[in-house]
Amino acid sequence: MAGNGGTTVGQYLVRRLEQAGLKHIFGVPGDYALRLFDLLQHSRMKVVTTCNELNAGYAADAYARLNGVGGVAVTYGVGGFSLFNAVVGAFAERVPLIVVSGAPRMYERQHHHLLHHTVGDMNLQYAMYEKITVAATVLLTPEQAPEQIDQTLAACLRYKRPVYIEVPVDVVAKPCREPGEFEPDTSISSHRHALDEAAEEAVEMFARAKSPAILAGVEIHRLGLRDEMLALLNRTGYPFATTLLGKAVVPEQHPQFAGVYIAALGGEQPRRVIEEADILMSLGALMTDVNLGIQTARLEAGRMIVANSDQVRIKHHLYPHVSLEDFITELRTGLPKRAPSLSGITHPSRALEGRFVVKPGEKITVKRFYQRLNRFVDGCHMLLADTGDAIFGAGEMFLPQGLEFIGQAFYMSIGFALPGTLGAMLAAPERRAVTFIGDGAFQMTGQELSTIIRHRLNPIIFLLNNEGYTIERVLRDGPYNDLQSWKYHRLPEIFGGGWGCEVRTEDDLEAALRMAQDRPNDLAFIEVRLDRWDYTDGLRKLGQVFNRK
Amino acid sequence: MAGNGGTTVGQYLVRRLEQAGLKHIFGVPGDYALRLFDLLQHSRMKVVTTCNELNAGYAADAYARLNGVGGVAVTYGVGGFSLFNAVVGAFAERVPLIVVSGAPRMYERQHHHLLHHTVGDMNLQYAMYEKITVAATVLLTPEQAPEQIDQTLAACLRYKRPVYIEVPVDVVAKPCREPGEFEPDTSISSHRHALDEAAEEAVEMFARAKSPAILAGVEIHRLGLRDEMLALLNRTGYPFATTLLGKAVVPEQHPQFAGVYIAALGGEQPRRVIEEADILMSLGALMTDVNLGIQTARLEAGRMIVANSDQVRIKHHLYPHVSLEDFITELRTGLPKRAPSLSGITHPSRALEGRFVVKPGEKITVKRFYQRLNRFVDGCHMLLADTGDAIFGAGEMFLPQGLEFIGQAFYMSIGFALPGTLGAMLAAPERRAVTFIGDGAFQMTGQELSTIIRHRLNPIIFLLNNEGYTIERVLRDGPYNDLQSWKYHRLPEIFGGGWGCEVRTEDDLEAALRMAQDRPNDLAFIEVRLDRWDYTDGLRKLGQVFNRK
Repeated sequence: MAGNGGTTVGQYLVRRLEQAGLKHIFGVPGDYALRLFDLLQHSRMKVVTTCNELNAGYAADAYARLNGVGGVAVTYGVGGFSLFNAVVGAFAERVPLIVVSGAPRMYERQHHHLLHHTVGDMNLQYAMYEKITVAATVLLTPEQAPEQIDQTLAACLRYKRPVYIEVPVDVVAKPCREPGEFEPDTSISSHRHALDEAAEEAVEMFARAKSPAILAGVEIHRLGLRDEMLALLNRTGYPFATTLLGKAVVPEQHPQFAGVYIAALGGEQPRRVIEEADILMSLGALMTDVNLGIQTARLEAGRMIVANSDQVRIKHHLYPHVSLEDFITELRTGLPKRAPSLSGITHPSRALEGRFVVKPGEKITVKRFYQRLNRFVDGCHMLLADTGDAIFGAGEMFLPQGLEFIGQAFYMSIGFALPGTLGAMLAAPERRAVTFIGDGAFQMTGQELSTIIRHRLNPIIFLLNNEGYTIERVLRDGPYNDLQSWKYHRLPEIFGGGWGCEVRTEDDLEAALRMAQDRPNDLAFIEVRLDRWDYTDGLRKLGQVFNRK
Repeated sequence: MAGNGGTTVGQYLVRRLEQAGLKHIFGVPGDYALRLFDLLQHSRMKVVTTCNELNAGYAADAYARLNGVGGVAVTYGVGGFSLFNAVVGAFAERVPLIVVSGAPRMYERQHHHLLHHTVGDMNLQYAMYEKITVAATVLLTPEQAPEQIDQTLAACLRYKRPVYIEVPVDVVAKPCREPGEFEPDTSISSHRHALDEAAEEAVEMFARAKSPAILAGVEIHRLGLRDEMLALLNRTGYPFATTLLGKAVVPEQHPQFAGVYIAALGGEQPRRVIEEADILMSLGALMTDVNLGIQTARLEAGRMIVANSDQVRIKHHLYPHVSLEDFITELRTGLPKRAPSLSGITHPSRALEGRFVVKPGEKITVKRFYQRLNRFVDGCHMLLADTGDAIFGAGEMFLPQGLEFIGQAFYMSIGFALPGTLGAMLAAPERRAVTFIGDGAFQMTGQELSTIIRHRLNPIIFLLNNEGYTIERVLRDGPYNDLQSWKYHRLPEIFGGGWGCEVRTEDDLEAALRMAQDRPNDLAFIEVRLDRWDYTDGLRKLGQVFNRK
């Protein structure tokens, strides 16, 4: 397809996607994207088609969280707009996701035909994606395409947020220059004087602090700063909590870990450590309503240092152009080494002391389910929790060293975790996923179980069936929160692989866990029947907060 | 909730939705919309919750096509953005769809919190919907809300296209004025002189015409002009064809009907009648690529009169502000009465002459399937065809008097027809739906079968299983067109109602059809196993056209 044996725009793009770090790409083909899919199919990337585009987006999002970058390819209009919510979610939660969309031919864009999959406005999809990405581009000419591709992908890798590349069908095969090496500058640079001044001010504040603490958030994970963070914690000895979105960004075994801070929705200890700190430093945490316990957080700006990807706020003033990485590095050397001061803090791992004694025949409860699962998961697993009570349940677990945790704890699309399990397992095939999904969330995107089976993946999926949208029931109940009852556990029969079972009692659960371990290569789909008014402490607190408002 | 016993904004909105003609409203609840759902639940409308928002949108779209208006209610962000593609489709296909979205509280909009289900920009969802609706509004104050609601709903009813109403949680309960009667002006008015001049010019052209013809399109249906159209046809005696999107807008039994015109993708006879007409009048047809046979149409503007909802184009000049209704009315009186001139035209009903003789044991083919089904459907049914080869198959059928046809023949989202069946059957419960869906389309939105079962609806759904995206295979084949094989016909067991079966031979099909008739109140879910390279003539022609390009 290339002119005189050279490279085409499509080949250039595909090569760059490989170089950016994609080993898989998710998507659904369609006629405006078929040439692109042909090239992807013949690339080093594995093309993973899903049942629909939204699910492809969720899968690619979870993939990106583990792999460092994710990608999704769709056709124009019907594809791009069906995918939309997943990209909004990735944008909100700082996920580096590359969206590639096919598009009508150049001459079709210029004429005023009403093309299928469009409303006639050929700028519409681009204009919308431009608002939910850090860079968006349409490849209109083969001369400019390479530079556009390089800059767009660099923005994705630098800011760890979604980007959008639209490729008209006929541009795919146009000849363009060879790709060569791809070594984009992905660092977020600091203004030297601002960095020095911010670090100096922070060090001085800590010098006078009596009860300092650190709140660690999701950007530590996204920007790959876990080691720097650990070094800082080890040097300072300060106690720390994580947010819910940032759960396990630093291993929870760390001796200075005080728990997950969700203000009034979380535990008392992390609340006390964070809210009673005389100097609180937030590193990479997003100030979202859920992270802040739906406005129950009692945090005073006057005693806070808040560092995010590219800026630091101290008390009421701002230092723009200070990168989180540089700031942590400066503090690591600038703060004096101290022994941990953990008086009055009980390590959250204590919750796991004592054996879990199965009560045969006893109906399984939410509380006992998470207590049992907390003893089941280990550092070789990854844990995915869907939006709803499942994310509160997972949030309350104490996670073992090495376990990866994925939950959409800010944007909170229900239905994320099942396609997310597909994406996560392809990104980290050496880990077995343990996934918690409510029945309402499952009905959103449940068909993707078939894709998990198709790729012979072996997650252990818990379908938590409490017959409706529990989180909404707690906020405001009505018949609209009820769901049609499915025989969920029999879905593996329909989709052609894995196995399913139904769990009602504690010993049923034991049998299911044993089966999952005895069949390590198979999907385990375990439907847990819970009482419709049984839910976590976190959700109970949410209901109280919500109904006070 | 209302101040001093009066009406609230939420109650006002709900009352207007009822008055606009909604007897059902589709949607998925979420915390920003719970108060609204409470009011909807207590209204005269029936709230129909679906598994996810996109499906709610498709259901409401099909509902609107039959009921004259449809509605969908969702929560903010995750709901609004998941719904998006369905509304783009309704906008493209001229469907009167009311979108109601909950939204964060007023004080939350003004502060710079990162609220769950958002990216922080509280204007984002409105700004996007504004581009795919004919009116979009955010109800910010109880004083202005009634007028905003009235104007927005009137625009929907007038232009038969989607509108968007966003309601912050705390505005729902604010007191506002009583709704009173709702009698919006929904007519599209004509400029009198332009109308007269256009009609006069058209009449003169027809006076000299030797082989005039009419092309009838979807707006005849949307604007409720079937009777006017029939009167015009009966008076003039001109032969006519419909577009694919406009299939059956005029009953196909009409003696002057020449077939469905899809240029090179359709039959020879309608092509000849339309393309060889010396004066061709297009009434309410959208000039889409599919309607025009993917640019194979040979239509010369110089011999055409093209009337759409609010304008008429004659040859190369335009008459703005001429309504389709007025234009047809003028011609009906202005054109002389003539006997039909149908020499050389064979009525399409002839294709149904002769008995269909079942070949026992013979594997069912695509051609024989549609031939048989053409003899099965009657005027009490409605026919839904999903995007893909199914819509070509349905397009080639000759439809009995009274049968309603629904297909997304312009925007072409795959997965539309199953949620569409839910919506259509709730809009017209006296009709039984017969639905054709390919396996690829079904995997997109298949969970909505459970909602069809939940409401005890009795459609006859044919799942046409040819193991992949057939339409794409014809355009360009690759492994990305393959699907995981499901035991589709067993899904009714999972979802808790109706029955399913698998059809491989002609006598299997007979047995299934008998069963469907013998169980008139049950969902029939019939999986038809087709050869993966077996498809309709229409798709074969599409492949030829596409591969020439």
